[in-house]
Amino acid sequence: MTSGFLEDFDVGDSRKAGPYLVSKAEIIQFAKQFDPRPFHVDEEAAARSVFKGLTASAAHAFSIFIFLTNKVQPPLRALAGLGYDEMRQPNAIRPGDELDLESTVLEKRESKSRPDTGILRSQIYLRNQKHETVFQCVSSVLVARRPPPKASA
Amino acid sequence: MTSGFLEDFDVGDSRKAGPYLVSKAEIIQFAKQFDPRPFHVDEEAAARSVFKGLTASAAHAFSIFIFLTNKVQPPLRALAGLGYDEMRQPNAIRPGDELDLESTVLEKRESKSRPDTGILRSQIYLRNQKHETVFQCVSSVLVARRPPPKASA
Repeated sequence: MTSGFLEDFDVGDSRKAGPYLVSKAEIIQFAKQFDPRPFHVDEEAAARSVFKGLTASAAHAFSIFIFLTNKVQPPLRALAGLGYDEMRQPNAIRPGDELDLESTVLEKRESKSRPDTGILRSQIYLRNQKHETVFQCVSSVLVARRPPPKASA
Repeated sequence: MTSGFLEDFDVGDSRKAGPYLVSKAEIIQFAKQFDPRPFHVDEEAAARSVFKGLTASAAHAFSIFIFLTNKVQPPLRALAGLGYDEMRQPNAIRPGDELDLESTVLEKRESKSRPDTGILRSQIYLRNQKHETVFQCVSSVLVARRPPPKASA
């Protein structure tokens, strides 16, 4: 299995993963640990919020994005996340949503300082079962390059 | 308690929260659920990674940022997160780190479409006990404005 190196991804390539079912229990449990605002943990308070119901924390959305990134085939040989930009949530994530990830390569380049690595910049979308975007960002990831073939003995 | 409205924050204001102790168990537990890459869940594999040891997932870092945002005083009357930009992790988060949040207002403006709300843009830093930045981003949050005083009967 030699796929998932920088060389295996071209600009414009799209890869998908999912679905990820977001249960009400998981929304509340995650938010109780990291983001216990009423509209993430309390159904009645959530009904009175601008969202008119329970919604997942942005931290939960980001975590689901990272989870699904690990499921993309071929698995990216990621060495480190370098940064994330333009993170937006055009629609809320709600209990029962089934989320799909789409990752499209925007740019790839070889690292100057580490010639065995390169950088992939990708446009990320998480969409729900109604094909509404619930999370998007641009990710920059340090990826391993394919090792050169060994000289035969 | 009438604090935490848009009117209570001025450009340049800094607010702090923390520390948040990041245990090895929490790093591994979080990563097993959302980001089970070897360098987040397996100490031996992590020792061989570019980080030379266990590090917290970016999703975990983002979640700790959101957690500490909830602890800032006065509590921001946040209605919704609008977006996050320029997320970077100049240094890794490691077991035993104690993280402090600093949030500084970059810009505030009233919403045109919703006059009872406004938007705060803030520069966020999470720093460890050695004062190294381990997470940074720019957050944009929809915040409630202070209601006008009621006319006396």
